[in-house]
Amino acid sequence: MSETKDALVVFMPSGRRGRFAHGTPLLDAARSLGVYVESVCGGRGLCGRCQVTPTAGRFAKHKITSSPETLSAVGDVEARYTRRRALPADRRLSCQARIGGDLVVDVPTDSAVNKQIVRKRAETRHIDRDPAVRLMYVEVAEPDMANPSGDLDRLQQALAREWMVDGARLDPPLLPHLQKVLRAGGWKVTAAIHDDSAGPVIIGLWPELRQRAFGLAVDIGSTTIAAHLVDLMSGRTVASAGTANPQVRFGEDLMSRVSYVLMNPDGLPALTEAVRGAVSGLIDKVAAEANAGRDDIMDATFVGNPVMHHIFLGLDPTELGGAPFALAVSGPVAVPAREIGVEIHPGARVYVLPCIAGHVGADAAAATLAEAPHRGEAITLLVDVGTNAEIVLGSRDRLLAASSPTGPAFEGAEISCGQRAAPGAIERVRIDPETLEPKIKVIGCDRWSDEPEFAVESPAVGVTGICGSGIVETIAEMFLAGIIDEDGVVDGTMLERSDRVVSDGRTFSYVLWREGSVAVRVTQTDVRAIQLAKAALYAGVRLLMDRLGVENVDRIRLAGAFGSYIDPKYAMVLGLIPDCALDQVAAVGNAAGTGARMALLNRGHRREVEKLVRDVEKIETAMEPKFQAHFVSAMAFPNKTEPFPRLAEAVALPVRSGPAAGDPPRRRGGRRRRTG
Amino acid sequence: MSETKDALVVFMPSGRRGRFAHGTPLLDAARSLGVYVESVCGGRGLCGRCQVTPTAGRFAKHKITSSPETLSAVGDVEARYTRRRALPADRRLSCQARIGGDLVVDVPTDSAVNKQIVRKRAETRHIDRDPAVRLMYVEVAEPDMANPSGDLDRLQQALAREWMVDGARLDPPLLPHLQKVLRAGGWKVTAAIHDDSAGPVIIGLWPELRQRAFGLAVDIGSTTIAAHLVDLMSGRTVASAGTANPQVRFGEDLMSRVSYVLMNPDGLPALTEAVRGAVSGLIDKVAAEANAGRDDIMDATFVGNPVMHHIFLGLDPTELGGAPFALAVSGPVAVPAREIGVEIHPGARVYVLPCIAGHVGADAAAATLAEAPHRGEAITLLVDVGTNAEIVLGSRDRLLAASSPTGPAFEGAEISCGQRAAPGAIERVRIDPETLEPKIKVIGCDRWSDEPEFAVESPAVGVTGICGSGIVETIAEMFLAGIIDEDGVVDGTMLERSDRVVSDGRTFSYVLWREGSVAVRVTQTDVRAIQLAKAALYAGVRLLMDRLGVENVDRIRLAGAFGSYIDPKYAMVLGLIPDCALDQVAAVGNAAGTGARMALLNRGHRREVEKLVRDVEKIETAMEPKFQAHFVSAMAFPNKTEPFPRLAEAVALPVRSGPAAGDPPRRRGGRRRRTG
Repeated sequence: MSETKDALVVFMPSGRRGRFAHGTPLLDAARSLGVYVESVCGGRGLCGRCQVTPTAGRFAKHKITSSPETLSAVGDVEARYTRRRALPADRRLSCQARIGGDLVVDVPTDSAVNKQIVRKRAETRHIDRDPAVRLMYVEVAEPDMANPSGDLDRLQQALAREWMVDGARLDPPLLPHLQKVLRAGGWKVTAAIHDDSAGPVIIGLWPELRQRAFGLAVDIGSTTIAAHLVDLMSGRTVASAGTANPQVRFGEDLMSRVSYVLMNPDGLPALTEAVRGAVSGLIDKVAAEANAGRDDIMDATFVGNPVMHHIFLGLDPTELGGAPFALAVSGPVAVPAREIGVEIHPGARVYVLPCIAGHVGADAAAATLAEAPHRGEAITLLVDVGTNAEIVLGSRDRLLAASSPTGPAFEGAEISCGQRAAPGAIERVRIDPETLEPKIKVIGCDRWSDEPEFAVESPAVGVTGICGSGIVETIAEMFLAGIIDEDGVVDGTMLERSDRVVSDGRTFSYVLWREGSVAVRVTQTDVRAIQLAKAALYAGVRLLMDRLGVENVDRIRLAGAFGSYIDPKYAMVLGLIPDCALDQVAAVGNAAGTGARMALLNRGHRREVEKLVRDVEKIETAMEPKFQAHFVSAMAFPNKTEPFPRLAEAVALPVRSGPAAGDPPRRRGGRRRRTG
Repeated sequence: MSETKDALVVFMPSGRRGRFAHGTPLLDAARSLGVYVESVCGGRGLCGRCQVTPTAGRFAKHKITSSPETLSAVGDVEARYTRRRALPADRRLSCQARIGGDLVVDVPTDSAVNKQIVRKRAETRHIDRDPAVRLMYVEVAEPDMANPSGDLDRLQQALAREWMVDGARLDPPLLPHLQKVLRAGGWKVTAAIHDDSAGPVIIGLWPELRQRAFGLAVDIGSTTIAAHLVDLMSGRTVASAGTANPQVRFGEDLMSRVSYVLMNPDGLPALTEAVRGAVSGLIDKVAAEANAGRDDIMDATFVGNPVMHHIFLGLDPTELGGAPFALAVSGPVAVPAREIGVEIHPGARVYVLPCIAGHVGADAAAATLAEAPHRGEAITLLVDVGTNAEIVLGSRDRLLAASSPTGPAFEGAEISCGQRAAPGAIERVRIDPETLEPKIKVIGCDRWSDEPEFAVESPAVGVTGICGSGIVETIAEMFLAGIIDEDGVVDGTMLERSDRVVSDGRTFSYVLWREGSVAVRVTQTDVRAIQLAKAALYAGVRLLMDRLGVENVDRIRLAGAFGSYIDPKYAMVLGLIPDCALDQVAAVGNAAGTGARMALLNRGHRREVEKLVRDVEKIETAMEPKFQAHFVSAMAFPNKTEPFPRLAEAVALPVRSGPAAGDPPRRRGGRRRRTG
């Protein structure tokens, strides 16, 4: 060993480097540097997961000349693997190849799933992989009369010897299967080890080498439930599915479901069964899509708002219906899946992410984990708009969270022509400021209504209503066109300029679409509903900004379905969100689901979300005296008292009527101020 | 604090002493010295378990003058307790009484259950108390909107703050009850914490102060199952019950039950259900006797031989039916009771003691724990005789274990007039060496058969047969009377001396009892059966003595039902056990049950039995070449080759026929040699 100088080895892409004695297996070298190279078979050349690519040549940057030919020759074990599985020509099994000289090694991303790219819809995200469940192949000592010990005890010894897993307990449901599996595998078995905060547990056991383990990440929303099946071995999301939350039949919104539980003795079990049944259906779907069985799913993470979180766990949500909005559990819940009726592998575990407060749930915690305001220096505003808007604001220095009761207007409810996002719903609107004529886009058709193809390609149902994102855009365009003023009053004088503006008696409406006897219109009451909703949201955001002592935010992230579909520009024109450079406002899709997948794939992210939930300052907006004042100012478009200079650079806003806060709404035409 | 000198306080009976600042509560002083004083209420003066007796006067031995009057006066809290519960006049609540001067304090054994005396049948045993389950009263912070956190999280904080229990997890079945219990108790609750090797778990929760928790210790024997209900708060055994093992209908002995499992696809579930059902019946019995509910039982320990251990846990025992006699599990099994069908409190835990080897089970481990050869310097032989004899030999320096296949003769099976121990069975025998006339005692009557009252008081069934202990005594008396010789041959020449000796053709029998047409006799075949059984046992013992390198043992402990009823003297006369001073031979009753209670009451005993099972050297007698030679010598009474000098000092043994080992049995009269 000491007759030759130790070799310098650099692992890419991490660039970690170290000197190693000749003869050291590359796998051992990687591990000693903390470079994550997967191995299920424990270095026996069976699983092929430890593949690496040695590279040749002079690397000026690393100051070494890499010589792959110094590696030990391909031996029997590696040759046998190559015959079975076709190892690419430039690859070696790092458990077999031994260091013989200086070397630069690429750890390829397809086998070294450490830095795995996960694709889900348009979203790309790196999730470092360190799952709670790992597969470990072991060769167990056979029973020996001269040295008697139990099958389990010898399995535990093998895990300790080969994988440094000490004191692994056996999950009780495995007890009756232990003997058979060990004998079926000829004392060669693969164990699934769950190792999170409660210590290592043997939760699965199969004969011989097994390299198949999936995890489930579920986001239980009030309206929809989404499930993702993730390959724990690669980190890839292999299937996704969604379904309507069947609890809707007990109540459209959260509070009506809480009332149902309060009023019906069997309400809680019925609601719990409904959501668990829906989850079970999704498991079937994603498993079928990935050609997997329920038994292949070894771990699961769940997120949801506090009411969904409680009902899913069988916890009474009625305490969440009134002050002090006490959660039964705010910390993470880690339980065997079988204890809460999730039928996957009998030994599988469930990890339910922690809730932040009575109105800020595990979904918000997961979205925060995913968007990571706590990791950066930028003051980030994260908003998830639903019946309650969940608001997180801050940076690595300090993080605040609150919720604001926006009501269901943003979801198309309480709007006269509002409807759920479905084919036929208007989702995009442009109003010509001169003619006041609109053009629209509906869900299910890519054409604008002024394009000739629209008549042919628009959905057979016709134009049926306006969805949540459509109403925001419509009202913003009405404001920009001067049809409504900054106080939200539909200008009756416009009656003269366009037949789109019609009288409803004392107030006026704007007709967005006419087709036969059907008219899709926005009424004064609709505008008021949106004003109330957006004022509640903005007042909450503004309160957090006060607390944090900032006048501006650097970045805005809009999470959730509504956040994904609204145009950030129109949201800011209406003053839903504070002024910010438009290129720093982005929809982040199902950030809660992303957070659930992160917690599924990496135990470190579990500790991270637990810490951020402990550390985040929880603000109860209802208890803040300034909330009302902020709310009143925020009734105006975009705001009665606050300037939106960065928005004004990007959009021609109507000229302000004046700085006076709390003016009563007046009937007055909007005037345009062109800037930028 | 520093203006007066710290006070010297001595706690009795431990004698632990320390100096404490004036104002220190006695409870805190005791704890800081490691003196175990119970408290459920956490020092609030509610539970009264921390009572101590301050004593007055000069204690020369401790070199202090104890002045109880220096203690703080009885305050409101203590006075309130005294009104409710009548504290004895000399007692103080140590959580309330604060040190004010030198003091000697008695920790009474009725409240300081640390050193509790447990009475069970005639047996008295001290078991230091440190149970895995403890009750802890806490006052939980109420929900606070300004500082939101879950009910569970606040309960966990209270446990950490008041009891130093960090990171207690909640047992999943408690989840749905958490909210209700906390509110029912007005945020004052008692938690049951199970804290053994897997970390603290909240397994029970009740409103307000609760001081009621029981544990169950069960010994599953092949023939009978015994259960003890123990008050975990005091350490007392409050109820015991036994029942026949209903598995008997699947097979009398262990191997026939193993065969049943092998031959019948549903055999294992049927046997498992039978034993679990019997345990359930016993739980009802002991709970009723102690006026307790199943829900009051929070912990349980189980012992049994390997086959019973496996079947109870739902593990296939067929591997135990042949070499290499592989146990599925040899280490301890710690699982929630609900996972293995033990219906006690939903959160209760079960701890199954470890097995030593394929034929030396958790019952032997428990008996060893109870008799503690590993703690002393004396070479101790512990024997539990059943169908297999389990043998443990050694001292603190080294411990060996083995089993020996004695067969069922000692249990009265394979004996022509043998029967189970039941009323009517002969259990005591004396034979007059001159007249060869016997007198007997039967189970169910305290009189000898030569007393006039025998006819009246003996059981109505009459004399029905001989039980296991009776057969040992009969054959030993026959040997001492010269009716059989050292080789076990019934001497046909005795025919002339007594009509008790009768011819069976080529061999002879001895008639122990005649009544009408019924005769209870001992045949030559019966003697042979006992010879084979006792030779197997002795050969096993002798092998362990060889291994240990000893010619004598210092102490012998006979465990189990058979061991309890046989007279050690007769066992030694027959050579079941090696030569030993008779006063060092004792029956220890259900030592396995005692070990189970020890593991129930003290976690330290769990670690102790785990360590002793790991450390004990397991000897497989069948693999030892010398076994056969020992067996042949041991066929003779007491032994063909080995002297029994200490026995000979106590008992007049017949004169030896000679030292020749392996002589074929010869028909020859026994001669008596009187010694001592």
